[in-house]
Amino acid sequence: MRSIEFVRNYTKYAEGSVLTVFGDTKVICTASIEESVPPFLRGRGRGWLTAEYGMLPRSTHTRMEREAARGRQSGRTQEIQRLIGRSIRAAFDLNAFGERTLKLDCDVIQADGGTRTASISGVMIAAYDAFSLMVEEGLIEKVPLNHFVAAISVGVIQGIPMLDLDYQEDSSCDTDMNVVMTESGDFVEIQGTAEGGPFSHSMLNEMLGMAQKGIDELIHMQKRVLGLEND
Amino acid sequence: MRSIEFVRNYTKYAEGSVLTVFGDTKVICTASIEESVPPFLRGRGRGWLTAEYGMLPRSTHTRMEREAARGRQSGRTQEIQRLIGRSIRAAFDLNAFGERTLKLDCDVIQADGGTRTASISGVMIAAYDAFSLMVEEGLIEKVPLNHFVAAISVGVIQGIPMLDLDYQEDSSCDTDMNVVMTESGDFVEIQGTAEGGPFSHSMLNEMLGMAQKGIDELIHMQKRVLGLEND
Amino acid sequence: MRSIEFVRNYTKYAEGSVLTVFGDTKVICTASIEESVPPFLRGRGRGWLTAEYGMLPRSTHTRMEREAARGRQSGRTQEIQRLIGRSIRAAFDLNAFGERTLKLDCDVIQADGGTRTASISGVMIAAYDAFSLMVEEGLIEKVPLNHFVAAISVGVIQGIPMLDLDYQEDSSCDTDMNVVMTESGDFVEIQGTAEGGPFSHSMLNEMLGMAQKGIDELIHMQKRVLGLEND
Amino acid sequence: MRSIEFVRNYTKYAEGSVLTVFGDTKVICTASIEESVPPFLRGRGRGWLTAEYGMLPRSTHTRMEREAARGRQSGRTQEIQRLIGRSIRAAFDLNAFGERTLKLDCDVIQADGGTRTASISGVMIAAYDAFSLMVEEGLIEKVPLNHFVAAISVGVIQGIPMLDLDYQEDSSCDTDMNVVMTESGDFVEIQGTAEGGPFSHSMLNEMLGMAQKGIDELIHMQKRVLGLEND
Amino acid sequence: MRSIEFVRNYTKYAEGSVLTVFGDTKVICTASIEESVPPFLRGRGRGWLTAEYGMLPRSTHTRMEREAARGRQSGRTQEIQRLIGRSIRAAFDLNAFGERTLKLDCDVIQADGGTRTASISGVMIAAYDAFSLMVEEGLIEKVPLNHFVAAISVGVIQGIPMLDLDYQEDSSCDTDMNVVMTESGDFVEIQGTAEGGPFSHSMLNEMLGMAQKGIDELIHMQKRVLGLEND
Amino acid sequence: MRSIEFVRNYTKYAEGSVLTVFGDTKVICTASIEESVPPFLRGRGRGWLTAEYGMLPRSTHTRMEREAARGRQSGRTQEIQRLIGRSIRAAFDLNAFGERTLKLDCDVIQADGGTRTASISGVMIAAYDAFSLMVEEGLIEKVPLNHFVAAISVGVIQGIPMLDLDYQEDSSCDTDMNVVMTESGDFVEIQGTAEGGPFSHSMLNEMLGMAQKGIDELIHMQKRVLGLEND
Repeated sequence: MRSIEFVRNYTKYAEGSVLTVFGDTKVICTASIEESVPPFLRGRGRGWLTAEYGMLPRSTHTRMEREAARGRQSGRTQEIQRLIGRSIRAAFDLNAFGERTLKLDCDVIQADGGTRTASISGVMIAAYDAFSLMVEEGLIEKVPLNHFVAAISVGVIQGIPMLDLDYQEDSSCDTDMNVVMTESGDFVEIQGTAEGGPFSHSMLNEMLGMAQKGIDELIHMQKRVLGLEND
Repeated sequence: MRSIEFVRNYTKYAEGSVLTVFGDTKVICTASIEESVPPFLRGRGRGWLTAEYGMLPRSTHTRMEREAARGRQSGRTQEIQRLIGRSIRAAFDLNAFGERTLKLDCDVIQADGGTRTASISGVMIAAYDAFSLMVEEGLIEKVPLNHFVAAISVGVIQGIPMLDLDYQEDSSCDTDMNVVMTESGDFVEIQGTAEGGPFSHSMLNEMLGMAQKGIDELIHMQKRVLGLEND
Repeated sequence: MRSIEFVRNYTKYAEGSVLTVFGDTKVICTASIEESVPPFLRGRGRGWLTAEYGMLPRSTHTRMEREAARGRQSGRTQEIQRLIGRSIRAAFDLNAFGERTLKLDCDVIQADGGTRTASISGVMIAAYDAFSLMVEEGLIEKVPLNHFVAAISVGVIQGIPMLDLDYQEDSSCDTDMNVVMTESGDFVEIQGTAEGGPFSHSMLNEMLGMAQKGIDELIHMQKRVLGLEND
Repeated sequence: MRSIEFVRNYTKYAEGSVLTVFGDTKVICTASIEESVPPFLRGRGRGWLTAEYGMLPRSTHTRMEREAARGRQSGRTQEIQRLIGRSIRAAFDLNAFGERTLKLDCDVIQADGGTRTASISGVMIAAYDAFSLMVEEGLIEKVPLNHFVAAISVGVIQGIPMLDLDYQEDSSCDTDMNVVMTESGDFVEIQGTAEGGPFSHSMLNEMLGMAQKGIDELIHMQKRVLGLEND
Repeated sequence: MRSIEFVRNYTKYAEGSVLTVFGDTKVICTASIEESVPPFLRGRGRGWLTAEYGMLPRSTHTRMEREAARGRQSGRTQEIQRLIGRSIRAAFDLNAFGERTLKLDCDVIQADGGTRTASISGVMIAAYDAFSLMVEEGLIEKVPLNHFVAAISVGVIQGIPMLDLDYQEDSSCDTDMNVVMTESGDFVEIQGTAEGGPFSHSMLNEMLGMAQKGIDELIHMQKRVLGLEND
Repeated sequence: MRSIEFVRNYTKYAEGSVLTVFGDTKVICTASIEESVPPFLRGRGRGWLTAEYGMLPRSTHTRMEREAARGRQSGRTQEIQRLIGRSIRAAFDLNAFGERTLKLDCDVIQADGGTRTASISGVMIAAYDAFSLMVEEGLIEKVPLNHFVAAISVGVIQGIPMLDLDYQEDSSCDTDMNVVMTESGDFVEIQGTAEGGPFSHSMLNEMLGMAQKGIDELIHMQKRVLGLEND
């Protein structure tokens, strides 16, 4: 894995805010609490959690068109924000924080591969911070945690599985896999794509084993940064 | 698996056209050849392949809003059409049919779960037919096949893995996985989501084994329907 | 007229569903009941009926761009769906089925001319079926029918009026007219366009006479298919 | 018919510009020449003609939402501008003015019914003026006129056919018909809608006869205003 | 200043309607009263005022694309309508006419420079007329006027400041400034842009002095046209 | 003025990249060079410069809707990015860097008032850096500088003019003015709005004098940070 860092309280106004650094990939992850739920959930006494993802136009090697100027989010953006939402919804108990919505925003300010896994791993901390604030304010009794989740990418380059690929590695790999796991080593999401040729079941198992080690390490980092575990 | 049927030459004008039936799920899959490639590929002497997906408003239990009227495709639609495109791009050699684009359309006329896997499995045949037509017309020498691909869903319901879920099963399952594989049992795409609780590595292996059997059967059906294999 | 067929109960979930076949033109027509009316009608105790129209991208000789991908419906699409809505609103008594909306969808899966007249003629049956279902369910006492309506195209080709033009005839005709009529031979809609040169009043009368015969036959077919009349 | 007036050269920059007044309905009609044709016509040596229609937000009794602010043109707007385009394309020979586009704009500044027929009748003059300017500038030899066209509405109110309905009449009429005709009494477009109950063939003939008289008068007015005929 | 004219009651339905003429620039300015306020103001007992701006496609020397057809308003349009809204909100007391919205529309039918300043100066009168009508109808006791406002452009051409530039002057000027002022000579809005080179503080003062004289004259014209002052 | 900081080379890929900090307002400003110009400038041998502006959804006290998700940029966003573009175009000679486009992006990651003036002041440095890189790469001979520009806000709070307002001050001020100036004290842009009551010419002069001092200081900071001037 590349050098990883989570900077809590990175911006001032969000209920949770974390700068997530995976090598040269940098993502601002925030969690915002809103005192309402979408219409289809009103009156059911439960909460909701949703995620949005974006990239600054010049987060990338060559400038990308701004989605707001273009008038719509790309398929890739929507795919990623749906993945983030599903991953973090698995981490918390939506029945345990009232009719509120947690809005997660992951905005990439520098992109060198792995932005979706960095987003998930970092916004997990921002969401935890937002729930902690609700506990402090007496709105809920405890953080409605199911289990910590983190995400990592694994790829196969010239037949060799590798963890946490940067942009150059990602561009040249045969297989690209994103894994979201809990602290107990169970899967929340697996998304694997054969970019070059198809991959075998044994290679899959090798990649998943590698991912599990990475995620275990990431979840310890998350807990340490939140003060839930000692260094 | 549910009762499965592929009806070739279902509509009259497309270069390839297959009605795909998985139980009560019915998808019209067509393949259209266009004599050009997108701007970013012009002059490179290679082809392109892209997919679009849609649902008729009343393909579902309750009527859905028409995406054309709403003015944009949902994130789900974009996610599915990107998956179909990647899957079928893996099946064919894009360097071997000149500067042409194969446009695949998968339109669901009745939806009872598994529309994305039915789309992939059926549009594979439509694409093969379109390439066969190009061979007949002397445009290319042979179908530029890498390997057949098919797709199937697997889910876990009350702890028991099940193949090819219908809508009711899909709505109540703990884990939902879509697998795209080649005839040799290698993976092209794996997308697994823990809807209920996270799932273990051994359950994953059980699901993938089940998927492999289903896909093996589907690829035999594809070949029989194309006359490449006897019943 | 070309060979015409109406296949009731073509899809499984809609309250009314008819595959309409006019020669090589095939349209899936469905009617969906919704238990509400648009805001401008709320509290007035009357119903509403609206129609939408679409074409599958490869329903046509060369593939058309998907309207959902393009982000808006064409002027032609809007013109057609407004025509379908007006025609079927004339067929039923909007005051006689409570604060409900009947949503009609006409989706062309194969297009060889006359898609708008096939849509109207077929969706009339789907709407009737949906109202019959409401009668069965005890929601209303009887089908709120004003009169059956059907539609047919007439054109002038090299000076000779012809009924129910296919795509090739339509492309080469001098005059293109769509007529929507009741069973008693009165007009609901007339839309005639001089594609070549202007047409005379006597030619108009000749075309309308021809249309009336076609529509009379269509309405008998509608009734037979609904079991309201014997063969 | 209501009091009708055509004011030529109403605005300063357009190649043709006419304020069209039908009673309290007032439409600014302009014709603009552009030295190119749409891509699908390039290199064929012929011209094109297209029309757009709009209403000022407060042209109506209660303010309408601005279509530019709403982000799209309504179905009604598109239907009307397609009708205007087809009508005026019938009036001129598109093969006789080179690879140029005539863009017609009809903008309603006050609406009291009949805006589409006023638009067609007035923009005919603006188009003629634009072609005359091209003759003056030596770009073409003569105005490429097929025949003058004009348009009028006819309606049936409590069983009695009436010409050129204003908004109040239009709102309460049983049948609403718009007729576009040439000076020789032949039809370019007929669009009739049964708003109340269906209408009979004899009533249709009565309406068309009335329309013919109105259009004859309108075409004389068009010619007088253009100086092609004496008062 | 160019020849200036304000024609009250220019159209028939709006609560206030003024044709504003500054030389060859002509703008239809209307004020519409709506009996509601936007959601964020409901229940506060105060009113709102908002403005929209548009140009007819052929108001300009060469035809502009229609914003409704293009699907969105340009940045320039939005900038102008925000300026008009702020300017006229300063002129009236929003707390003094109940929960109502005044909607201002400024539609340019001929553009020869200075359309935004003509819009502000003319729509001030239309707004006053709309409030007067509310007084007549007994809805409010008096026109909730803070102070009259008017607007004028000033520019520097080859070092010489000039008032009320037309299109040709505007295109060639070094500095372009729009000033909105009250009758007492205080500023409501100043927007100055160095088109050529930057401008000095003394030139700014010269321009503002010139603007003040123009605005003083404009406000006298507004009052005369409203009958609040004698000629 | 609040505490101000410019952090050069803040992100890794852009040709110029500056984190701009004005108190609690933080803006990432980047400059990207593209080797082409918009169509309307092709073949003229000169360059272009354009700016875009955005805010992260949770840069603000309460979360704002993401413009990319909403599908369009607000009027405010467009107004600001047009202002930034005009301001920096005045700073450089567009004829002196070939047919290239400088794209400026100002993305607010934390907003406490004055985001537009911080954007202009910071992106000036990023643009300078991008041009310096072009000099280093031998693409141009020298930075095509006309003059340094910087921007500052001035407001009047309870009758007292104040420089560089934060969000709370800005919300409560009577007058809000943004000034863009060159190092020689000349104006590039002035935009002043009376939020409370109109303001007098003498108050304007007081504000402009204050702005001039602030901008002088800012330009010295810009030069120091670029190493063009000693501390």
